[in-house]
Amino acid sequence: MSWNTKNTSPQDGDLVELVGLRHKHFIFPLKAGTSFQSHRGVIQHDDLIGLPWGSPIKSHQGSPFLLIQPALADLLRDLPRRTQILYPKDIGYILLTLGVGPGAKVTEAGTGSGALTTALAFAVGSEGKVYTYETNPDTQRQAENNLKRFGLESQVVFHNRDIREGFEESGVDALFLDLPNPYEYMQQVRQALKPGGSFGCILPTANQVILLLGVLRQARYAFVDVCEIMLRYYQAEATKFRPTDRMVAHTGFLIFARPVNIDETPESLDLLADTSSSN
Amino acid sequence: MSWNTKNTSPQDGDLVELVGLRHKHFIFPLKAGTSFQSHRGVIQHDDLIGLPWGSPIKSHQGSPFLLIQPALADLLRDLPRRTQILYPKDIGYILLTLGVGPGAKVTEAGTGSGALTTALAFAVGSEGKVYTYETNPDTQRQAENNLKRFGLESQVVFHNRDIREGFEESGVDALFLDLPNPYEYMQQVRQALKPGGSFGCILPTANQVILLLGVLRQARYAFVDVCEIMLRYYQAEATKFRPTDRMVAHTGFLIFARPVNIDETPESLDLLADTSSSN
Amino acid sequence: MSWNTKNTSPQDGDLVELVGLRHKHFIFPLKAGTSFQSHRGVIQHDDLIGLPWGSPIKSHQGSPFLLIQPALADLLRDLPRRTQILYPKDIGYILLTLGVGPGAKVTEAGTGSGALTTALAFAVGSEGKVYTYETNPDTQRQAENNLKRFGLESQVVFHNRDIREGFEESGVDALFLDLPNPYEYMQQVRQALKPGGSFGCILPTANQVILLLGVLRQARYAFVDVCEIMLRYYQAEATKFRPTDRMVAHTGFLIFARPVNIDETPESLDLLADTSSSN
Amino acid sequence: MSWNTKNTSPQDGDLVELVGLRHKHFIFPLKAGTSFQSHRGVIQHDDLIGLPWGSPIKSHQGSPFLLIQPALADLLRDLPRRTQILYPKDIGYILLTLGVGPGAKVTEAGTGSGALTTALAFAVGSEGKVYTYETNPDTQRQAENNLKRFGLESQVVFHNRDIREGFEESGVDALFLDLPNPYEYMQQVRQALKPGGSFGCILPTANQVILLLGVLRQARYAFVDVCEIMLRYYQAEATKFRPTDRMVAHTGFLIFARPVNIDETPESLDLLADTSSSN
Repeated sequence: MSWNTKNTSPQDGDLVELVGLRHKHFIFPLKAGTSFQSHRGVIQHDDLIGLPWGSPIKSHQGSPFLLIQPALADLLRDLPRRTQILYPKDIGYILLTLGVGPGAKVTEAGTGSGALTTALAFAVGSEGKVYTYETNPDTQRQAENNLKRFGLESQVVFHNRDIREGFEESGVDALFLDLPNPYEYMQQVRQALKPGGSFGCILPTANQVILLLGVLRQARYAFVDVCEIMLRYYQAEATKFRPTDRMVAHTGFLIFARPVNIDETPESLDLLADTSSSN
Repeated sequence: MSWNTKNTSPQDGDLVELVGLRHKHFIFPLKAGTSFQSHRGVIQHDDLIGLPWGSPIKSHQGSPFLLIQPALADLLRDLPRRTQILYPKDIGYILLTLGVGPGAKVTEAGTGSGALTTALAFAVGSEGKVYTYETNPDTQRQAENNLKRFGLESQVVFHNRDIREGFEESGVDALFLDLPNPYEYMQQVRQALKPGGSFGCILPTANQVILLLGVLRQARYAFVDVCEIMLRYYQAEATKFRPTDRMVAHTGFLIFARPVNIDETPESLDLLADTSSSN
Repeated sequence: MSWNTKNTSPQDGDLVELVGLRHKHFIFPLKAGTSFQSHRGVIQHDDLIGLPWGSPIKSHQGSPFLLIQPALADLLRDLPRRTQILYPKDIGYILLTLGVGPGAKVTEAGTGSGALTTALAFAVGSEGKVYTYETNPDTQRQAENNLKRFGLESQVVFHNRDIREGFEESGVDALFLDLPNPYEYMQQVRQALKPGGSFGCILPTANQVILLLGVLRQARYAFVDVCEIMLRYYQAEATKFRPTDRMVAHTGFLIFARPVNIDETPESLDLLADTSSSN
Repeated sequence: MSWNTKNTSPQDGDLVELVGLRHKHFIFPLKAGTSFQSHRGVIQHDDLIGLPWGSPIKSHQGSPFLLIQPALADLLRDLPRRTQILYPKDIGYILLTLGVGPGAKVTEAGTGSGALTTALAFAVGSEGKVYTYETNPDTQRQAENNLKRFGLESQVVFHNRDIREGFEESGVDALFLDLPNPYEYMQQVRQALKPGGSFGCILPTANQVILLLGVLRQARYAFVDVCEIMLRYYQAEATKFRPTDRMVAHTGFLIFARPVNIDETPESLDLLADTSSSN
C-alpha cells in the first residue's frame, strides 16, 4: 500500500480519497477489479486507476465525486480511533516547535490511535525514526494498522510497555507525551533526550498544567512555554464572509520545555525563569 | 556553516544559541579563536566548541548563559528581515495543511525575508526542493543570506522575477503565495501545481479574502478553507497560572484550496461548494 | 404579572424559575390552585407561593428542583422566538457602550423576538422609554407578549412599520439597529438621535460591515468602533478546570458610532479618522 | 457637578469631553469664565456652554476638537486610578448577569478606583443603592472623588473596613467581590445576599478559580458559571477591514453563583452540579 507518491494519477494499491456531495469523504486503497460503494452509487476502482488527481467522476447513479490524493490532514481526520486524537491545529505547531524534520529521531508516549505518530513518521521521512510507547495492546494494534495503511510503518518502532522504567532509546532529538500524568516522568524524559533536546506535551486541564509546571522547575527544565492554539474557521463565501457559528474552543494546553544542566545559584534560577517566552 | 546536525555538542562552524538573563537570545556560528561579546561580558568560542547542548556557561563577568541548539522556531523569530514575516503559529499549520514533508516540491512567492522559505526547505529535506519567487532584488539577497546562514540554501531555487507570466516549474506538490493580490494569479497557480495539488495563501484583510473567494469559485478551485490561527500564551508559573495579558490578535487569514477539473452542471457546482469544510 | 420584585419569596402572579436535573429550566408565572407538570413529576403552585427564593423542592415523584427568581439573562435565553436573538454577551456590552441606564430614551429596529427590547426596557426603568420598530406584525405580536410576560410592556412603545421614512421620535439618547442593511438608514438615524447621541448595530458578515463603514464616513459619523465579543465558558470543576470543548464562535460584529457636525477640511477628516479607538 | 443630563448642549457645571487629533481625550466639568488648555491650544469654557453635543470647535491655534457628552465607557477608561480597574467588556457582562437595574441594591468589595462602583451606581439609578467596602483609606478617598466627579455619589454608601466580620447590609440583590481571596468570604456573602441572590467575582489566575470552585461546592452555591470575555477590535476602515494586530488577551476569569439551601442527598448534589451551564 502506498500514499504520498509523487505520481499525477493513482495506481493499483495507492491510497485515494473520493469526495461527494454533503461533505462525504472516503479514503481507501485502490484494488484492481473491485468497486467502491456508497449510498450514492458504485464506482469501479479500474475507472480510478490512472485518472488524474483532481478529476471528477460520477457513480453509476450519476452522483458526482472528486478524486484527490488525501493530504496528511485528511488522513489524520479520518483515522480509525479508540481514543481522543490530537487535532491538526495542534500537530502543526508541535512539529514546528519541536523542530521535527527529515532525519530526526523522536520518541512519543502514548501512541493512542497514532495520529501524532503518523504526522511524526511523515515528517522525519525514511532517514528518521519514531519510537512510540503504548500500554494498551488493542490500542497499539489499531495504531499499527493505521500506520501500515499509510505506508509509514517502516519509520516507526512500536513499544507495548509502560515508560515508568524509562525509554529504551536515548539521545533522541525530541520527545512528546500525550499522557494524563507527564509530571511523573520528567526524569525519564531527561534521560531519553539528547542534551538540549525538546520536550512537549498536551494536557486538557489547568490542574494538570499547574502540577507539571511545579515539577519542570524542580527538574531543571528551561524554556518552559505554555500555550493554546485556537483555530477559527470562516465561511468560504465571497458574498457572506464571516466566522463560522461554532468552533472547537479547547483541545488542550501545549507545554514545551528543554532540560538543562544548571546549578542552584540565585542567578542561575533567575536565568531559568527568564527563558520562558511568556514571563 | 551547519545547523540541525545530530551531534550532542557544537563543533567549529555550527550555529549555536546563547540565552542570557532578561530573555536575551543570540544566534551565531562558532568560529574557533574568536569571541562572543555582549554587555553582559565575553565568552570564547573555543569554550563553546564541544560543550554539551543545554549546558550553562558564564561570561568573564560571571553572568550566566545557556548554550542550546537553536530550534527552527528560534531561527524564524531571529530572522534578519526587511518585511513582515510569517509567524510560527501560521507556518506550522501551513506545512501540515499543504502536506509538506521530505521529498516534496514546493513553490512560493514572494520570498520576503525567507521565513516560510526556511521552514519549507527544512521540511522537504535534501530530497525535496523549494522554488521561491521575489521581485525585489535586495529582499531576495537578504533571504538568500538567511538560508545560507542556516545551511539550507542547496534545497532552494531563487527566482528574481514576477510571477505574472507564470512559474518556471510545473507539477509541484504545493504552492503558497504571500502576496497582497493572489487573486490575480490563480491561472498561473493552476498551471504550476500537479493535478489536485494544494494551494495556500495568507491575507491580512477581509476585503482581500472576499476578492479571492470570488476568483477561486470562478477558477474552479475546490476544498476552499479560510481560517485563522490564534496563539494564546500562558504565564508558565505553577502558583499563578493564567493567560498572558496581551496577545497577537491577528497576523492574517489563511486560505487553502485545490484546483479541480469540474464541469458547470448544477450538481458539480453543488459539489464544489460542499468541499469547503466550513460550509 | 410581575418579575424583578424585591421580595424574598414569590407571590401569586410572580414569574418564577424551576431548575431540575439535566439542566432543565422552566420559567412561568405562579397561579394559585394550578400545578406545574414535567416528565419528572408534578409540583403545586401553592407550594411555591411564599417559599424563599433559592429553596429546593421535590416533585410528587421525588425529583429535586430549585426555585429561583429568574435573572435577566435567564429570561433572554428562554425567550419564545421566531428570529435569531442577540446573546447576553453582546447585550451587556451594547448597554454599557450606548450608556443605557435609568431614565434613558432609546430607539431600536427591528424588534425581532424582543430580546434587546427586554434588556433595554429593564435598564431604562420606569422613567425611561424604549421605542421599537418592526415590519412583521406576527413577530411584533410575539415580542409584545414576551414583554408583557416580564411586566416590562409599559416602558415600551411598539411601532409596526418601516423606518425608511424615518423614526417618529427625535432627540433619543441612543439608537440600535438589528437589521441586515443599517447602511441604508444612517440619515434617519442622525435625525432621530440627540446631538452626539450613540448609534450601534450588529451585523453577521464582513461584507455588511464594509458597506456600513463606507457609509458612516460619508455620513460624518465619528467614534466608529467595530468589535466582537467572544465568550468562553470553563468547566466549573475544581479538580478539572478547563475551557469547555466547544463555544459559540460568532454571533455578529458590533459597530458603534456617533453622528457629529464636522466640516470637510482635511484636518477635520483627520480628526474623524482619529476618533476610532482601533485606528 | 452633573453628568448624564438629558440636555442637548452642556451647561455650566456639566461634565464634557473634548476629543482632539491623535486620539487625545479630555474629560472635565465646565466652569464659566475659565479655559481649557492643551498643547494644541486654548478653548474658552464659555464657548462650550450651550454648544450642541457633537459639535466641532477649534482651539485658538486652529486645531480641531469635537465636543461630546462622555459615555459611561468613556468615564470608566478615563478614571483616575491607583489600582487595576475592571474593563468595560467585563463590566457590561457583570451587570447583565447579576441583573443589576434601576432600584437594585448591590454590595461590592473592594472598591478600588471605583470603576465597577461607577457602573453599578449608574445602573441602579436614584432608587437603588450601592454598598461598597474598601480597607485602604487612600484608595477609598480617590474612589469617592471619582464618584462625586460623575455626580453619582448619592447612590453609594462607602464603608472603609474589612469584610471578614461580614457585611453591614443584608438582603441585597447582588454582590460582587473584586478581591484576590473571595473563597474566604463565602459565608459572609451568603448572609448578605437575599435568598437566591446573585454572586459574582473576577480572578486573574486559574489557581484562584480552582480554590474558589472547591469552596463554592462546599458552601452549597449553585448555578456556578466560569467564563472569560474576550473583546476583539477591528480596524474601522472600509477598504482594509481586519482585526487589530494586538489585543488584551486576559483580564480575569469571571465567576458567578447563587447560594441555595440544598440538602446532602446524592440527588441534590447531582442537581447542584447540573446547574452549571458549562457542565
